[in-house]
Amino acid sequence: MAPHPSLTPQNILAAHALIKPYIRETPVLTSKSLNALASTPQSPEALIGTPFEGQKPADPKLNFFFKCENFQRIGAFKARGAFHALLRLVEREGAEVVRGRGVVTHSSGNHAQALSLAAATLSIPATIVMPSTSSPLKIAGTHAHNPRLLFSGPTSQEREAVVADVIKETNAFLIPPYDAVDIVLGQGTVGVEVERQVGELVVGREPGLSVHVHGKKEREGGKGQLLDAIITPLGGGGLTAGVATWFSDKPGTRVFGAEPAFEGADDCRRSLETGERVRFVKSTTIADGLRTPVGEVPWGVISDKSRVEGVYAVSERQIREAMRLVWERVKVVVEPSAVVPLAVALFDEGWRGMVERVCAAEGIEGWDVGIVFSGGNVAVEGIGGLFTKD
Amino acid sequence: MAPHPSLTPQNILAAHALIKPYIRETPVLTSKSLNALASTPQSPEALIGTPFEGQKPADPKLNFFFKCENFQRIGAFKARGAFHALLRLVEREGAEVVRGRGVVTHSSGNHAQALSLAAATLSIPATIVMPSTSSPLKIAGTHAHNPRLLFSGPTSQEREAVVADVIKETNAFLIPPYDAVDIVLGQGTVGVEVERQVGELVVGREPGLSVHVHGKKEREGGKGQLLDAIITPLGGGGLTAGVATWFSDKPGTRVFGAEPAFEGADDCRRSLETGERVRFVKSTTIADGLRTPVGEVPWGVISDKSRVEGVYAVSERQIREAMRLVWERVKVVVEPSAVVPLAVALFDEGWRGMVERVCAAEGIEGWDVGIVFSGGNVAVEGIGGLFTKD
Repeated sequence: MAPHPSLTPQNILAAHALIKPYIRETPVLTSKSLNALASTPQSPEALIGTPFEGQKPADPKLNFFFKCENFQRIGAFKARGAFHALLRLVEREGAEVVRGRGVVTHSSGNHAQALSLAAATLSIPATIVMPSTSSPLKIAGTHAHNPRLLFSGPTSQEREAVVADVIKETNAFLIPPYDAVDIVLGQGTVGVEVERQVGELVVGREPGLSVHVHGKKEREGGKGQLLDAIITPLGGGGLTAGVATWFSDKPGTRVFGAEPAFEGADDCRRSLETGERVRFVKSTTIADGLRTPVGEVPWGVISDKSRVEGVYAVSERQIREAMRLVWERVKVVVEPSAVVPLAVALFDEGWRGMVERVCAAEGIEGWDVGIVFSGGNVAVEGIGGLFTKD
Repeated sequence: MAPHPSLTPQNILAAHALIKPYIRETPVLTSKSLNALASTPQSPEALIGTPFEGQKPADPKLNFFFKCENFQRIGAFKARGAFHALLRLVEREGAEVVRGRGVVTHSSGNHAQALSLAAATLSIPATIVMPSTSSPLKIAGTHAHNPRLLFSGPTSQEREAVVADVIKETNAFLIPPYDAVDIVLGQGTVGVEVERQVGELVVGREPGLSVHVHGKKEREGGKGQLLDAIITPLGGGGLTAGVATWFSDKPGTRVFGAEPAFEGADDCRRSLETGERVRFVKSTTIADGLRTPVGEVPWGVISDKSRVEGVYAVSERQIREAMRLVWERVKVVVEPSAVVPLAVALFDEGWRGMVERVCAAEGIEGWDVGIVFSGGNVAVEGIGGLFTKD
């Protein structure tokens, strides 16, 4: 399946111009201690029980740039796609029609908050269907923007039945969380910002930040891409597909997706292996934003090897350890889904070995890697539990 | 007691120029939802059991700018003072002498990490005396910079005895955590940055951040100070005294100190009441960075009403609630000491009523308030406990 023809870097730039007044340009942070940790081989013991047991641990050199979408409005990148989808809908249908019919979605998480914020901002009536099992923090965050809030049972079928009733009743426009071109274009604006921000850091605007470029820029006299790679969390695939679209004409920057492996949540990785998109996932991974199967529109991008280099998956233990490191070293509050890319870079021997081999083949010292911290919506009461059980 | 004559805004600017290559310019963040919460009166129930019980809750309008020193190197503002003190010591004594004799300090917390980083950076041998009861995270953070690490019993006397032995043996220079002019000047550089950064935010360089100036700037056609007030945590007093020194020639910006009240940790507030500096504190407040009594050099500044407008103290429950709000709404990891100023602004009816009265008297809508998040060194394992006990 080919990428949708509207998924172009030009359209991502246009999306960015459109949503800019409504979103935050979130900061990019760095961490010397995480760079040092990532640039040290794992212990041989860490590989026991994996396919890499007994092999020499990989020794890549990595330099991270953390794009902090946990500071985005509503605490996650989802605000980008929701604003973009609504602004385009108003362009196409006219404000009066959209305000008359309203919009509807179902979501247990950040998309619910994002759509209710965007709809409230643009004075569009919104109906949000949330499973009654959603976290109280996310229900409260959604409620704060005063949408019409309906609760359903937890399964997809139960949620969709309530949405179908709403559409029947009000003729509302459905704004899906990831499986739509305008959503993908909105999420891709993360790529626009991170690319420019890393450039600003590297030319030394912030002298206190130790930025050390290993990669292409030094070799090619500043003509190559600043980032050798970027890794995004991958659930429904909107963020990965959007970022990959932005970098699709910048082949110096490789794009990777990161999934939890637990209970089959690595559906996209498995889909790529067979070439057949897995359509159903039922996982209780702590990375709760990544429990959904990859959508059809994102899959068109992600299954295109020239756009997405690969998808890697990590264990629950690795996600927890990455989360601890981000909290303690980077000092930002991230939700479990947000650290899955860092867990890949720190702990996935397949990925780390690949980086080492590519660097050796290209004669470069290491990679500068963008890591998207996708969100920070986690209730503090739950945190103790995350770090004590194992 | 008058402020030490070297404590001038000019000397703080000079300190900033000196330490700039070694520290980070930490970001300033804002939060619409915390502004809204702070600009809503507390419930009458929240005042029960306080001197304000039965009164109408105050209704100030507040707009916060959070200076995130939790992102500073070693995770706290203490890096500023430590680098400044060492760089000045080298200027005065010569690098050879300082490297020959080395430096020594005792600290259970962030100053230990800060001094060991600064000493390692400047190739100066450092001996750090830590109580063996210090948190494992802070011991590990100190150890990472390879100082000579000695452990002592927990009391001041036991720590000081070990330091005295070290000085006797090596003739090392003592670098105290707060009670020294060069330390105060270093910490004051927080003021230089936050003033400029708020100016940049207000002129709209970051369109996504909603910055709404209530205060003097609008009234006086841009000639007044951007910040109506700044509140800093107050333990030994180095940060408060430094920031107050920076703003001492900018009377439009009022400086406040914030302490925990628990078990007498509000020593500086009590000292101001009697005019006599309290020299001994023994408190187990969760704001562990603020358990120390105010030092003599800081006291010279803080007891000068023209420099520090007032010191306020909050309860353990209020500190925990402020911490939860910062984690959940601002998405940054802060240690309990770091949120004491926000707790004052949100929950201290004395401070809130004062703001309301000043605004009414001056005919302004509300205050723009700088809040220093002083550090973020907290182990994730302890977090569950902080939020479940009450």
